[in-house]
Amino acid sequence: MTRIITIALDAMGGDIGPSVTVPAAVESVREHSDLSLVLVGDEQVIRAELSRLGASEGERLSVLHTTQTVGMDEPPAQALRGKKDSSMRVSINLVKQGNAQACVSGGNTGALMATAKYVLKTLPGIDRPAICTTIPAIKGHTYVLDLGANVDCSAEQLYQFAVMGSVLVSAVDNQASPRVGLLNIGQEDIKGNDQVRGAAQLLENSDLNYIGFVEGNDIFLGEVDVVVCDGFAGNVALKTMEGTSKTIAHFLREEFSRSWMTRLAALCAAPVLGALKRRIDPRKYNGASFLGLGGIVVKSHGSSDSVALRTAIEVARLEVEKAVPARIDSQLEALLARRASA
Amino acid sequence: MTRIITIALDAMGGDIGPSVTVPAAVESVREHSDLSLVLVGDEQVIRAELSRLGASEGERLSVLHTTQTVGMDEPPAQALRGKKDSSMRVSINLVKQGNAQACVSGGNTGALMATAKYVLKTLPGIDRPAICTTIPAIKGHTYVLDLGANVDCSAEQLYQFAVMGSVLVSAVDNQASPRVGLLNIGQEDIKGNDQVRGAAQLLENSDLNYIGFVEGNDIFLGEVDVVVCDGFAGNVALKTMEGTSKTIAHFLREEFSRSWMTRLAALCAAPVLGALKRRIDPRKYNGASFLGLGGIVVKSHGSSDSVALRTAIEVARLEVEKAVPARIDSQLEALLARRASA
Repeated sequence: MTRIITIALDAMGGDIGPSVTVPAAVESVREHSDLSLVLVGDEQVIRAELSRLGASEGERLSVLHTTQTVGMDEPPAQALRGKKDSSMRVSINLVKQGNAQACVSGGNTGALMATAKYVLKTLPGIDRPAICTTIPAIKGHTYVLDLGANVDCSAEQLYQFAVMGSVLVSAVDNQASPRVGLLNIGQEDIKGNDQVRGAAQLLENSDLNYIGFVEGNDIFLGEVDVVVCDGFAGNVALKTMEGTSKTIAHFLREEFSRSWMTRLAALCAAPVLGALKRRIDPRKYNGASFLGLGGIVVKSHGSSDSVALRTAIEVARLEVEKAVPARIDSQLEALLARRASA
Repeated sequence: MTRIITIALDAMGGDIGPSVTVPAAVESVREHSDLSLVLVGDEQVIRAELSRLGASEGERLSVLHTTQTVGMDEPPAQALRGKKDSSMRVSINLVKQGNAQACVSGGNTGALMATAKYVLKTLPGIDRPAICTTIPAIKGHTYVLDLGANVDCSAEQLYQFAVMGSVLVSAVDNQASPRVGLLNIGQEDIKGNDQVRGAAQLLENSDLNYIGFVEGNDIFLGEVDVVVCDGFAGNVALKTMEGTSKTIAHFLREEFSRSWMTRLAALCAAPVLGALKRRIDPRKYNGASFLGLGGIVVKSHGSSDSVALRTAIEVARLEVEKAVPARIDSQLEALLARRASA
């Protein structure tokens, strides 16, 4: 008998809400026979959406009513204190109570992180959780963390990120010994700030497969599996990548629409450009994992459509299947034990 | 009578050296009748290159012999102490002595910055010089600083970068009031680290046209002229941009070479792809300005070809023409006077 994986979906999360989250949920349970989703939010809106789609509630697709929604720009502290019946909070509660094995939300990142930390707590040995996602590389993809949860990070915190990222990759991508790199601004030992140099020392003396400093361009070469950085640098890298891709796409569109000649060329190249677009489609890389918590929380991009949200649900499903938090926990326990005996 | 602008060119600098620097120099003086270049380096190699090109020394193209070369990976302190007759050091000396108005080098960035600071000193009111370059945007281009000279920056230093960047853009691009943004990981006031929030306060109370926080993707939108950040974040952004562009180019090549059909499409699209390539050609954006020094120093990318190096020479020429250091200096003087009277 297959074990059923239950995921709580914040149905009100994201810029669009139920008209994206409900179709994504319906498709996801159709696709995975071992998946059960709890749609958390305004039951009236969710049910209207379900009936519009001709989908019905059942064992693997249920609705849990909540009365509040966290705004996309609401201060995290306010959401945490004042929105105890929000779709976001209740989704996380389900994980805490063991009624779901993971939570997926496209809501306000700050509020989601604050609430997840408050409800699920961090794992022993973890100072602060980190946000981790995959980025397309020339060969395969690269995991980068932290992407914005922690602006200032000590060497020890960067080291913890490395442990967590490494566990995630070995679990989810079945890689025995993921290559870990530290994001820096040069590959020489003298470069970088104190935190990065301190983290390098910790990593050199660790069991991780630490390959040394990497730079922003190395994220894309497929020669490192986990790139570790503070949330400021990680967020800058992620947003710069998005900006660069969009700029190139914009230039490409402009160049292809200059004249009837170039428009003809566009027709000719359309299948190839379509293939490229599919290849770097950000929807395929949606779903950022909050690592270091006592439960699985995956953040979907706020502007996700249902295809992108399904990717985030799949990220959560895989993390449940591979028991990521338990693996991180046991890795940390071993680490703490080694330190205690040292 | 046109005033002649004299630029010292580190002829041994860069990964390739004279076979790139000498052709670039020859072309540059041909292009600009007001330009004079001093080729600094091994005279034998330089003269061999000149004769290979059928070019001759003259008033606007002279050779200054030096006996040493700074290695691309040489520690800056070692270059500073041990290489007093290097092509790099002598090029900077020429600026100090007033025999050149600017220096261009494709050599080791750290050594170039350390030597430039030592020889030319920083301007009064500047704690540390910054590295600034332009990045292509959907509309026009954006200046970003610092790109790696300073990994940790105080609020005051970020503010100084904003002043220098703003002066550079108003001088070189003839913009009366350049829009200045602070790189952050969210646009809300509560986001970011202490330094960034502190710099925001200084900028809000300044005469600069400060538009607020910007994120990595905003660099490319053309809605900000100067993006200010510490050298760690700036370097990560720059390298991530390079990596993303190369990855997309790689994917594009792969998709266009999958089959005879796609190769036919490539033929058809070749003029358009060529136009795109020219548009985002990094050689058009070569030449990073070291700002805050008592003289003009422009860093060319180490792997530059002669086309790219000519762009860097042009950056230096423009900065001389527009008297950038004097403008920064007077802006700082006014600022220091205001602070003293406050």
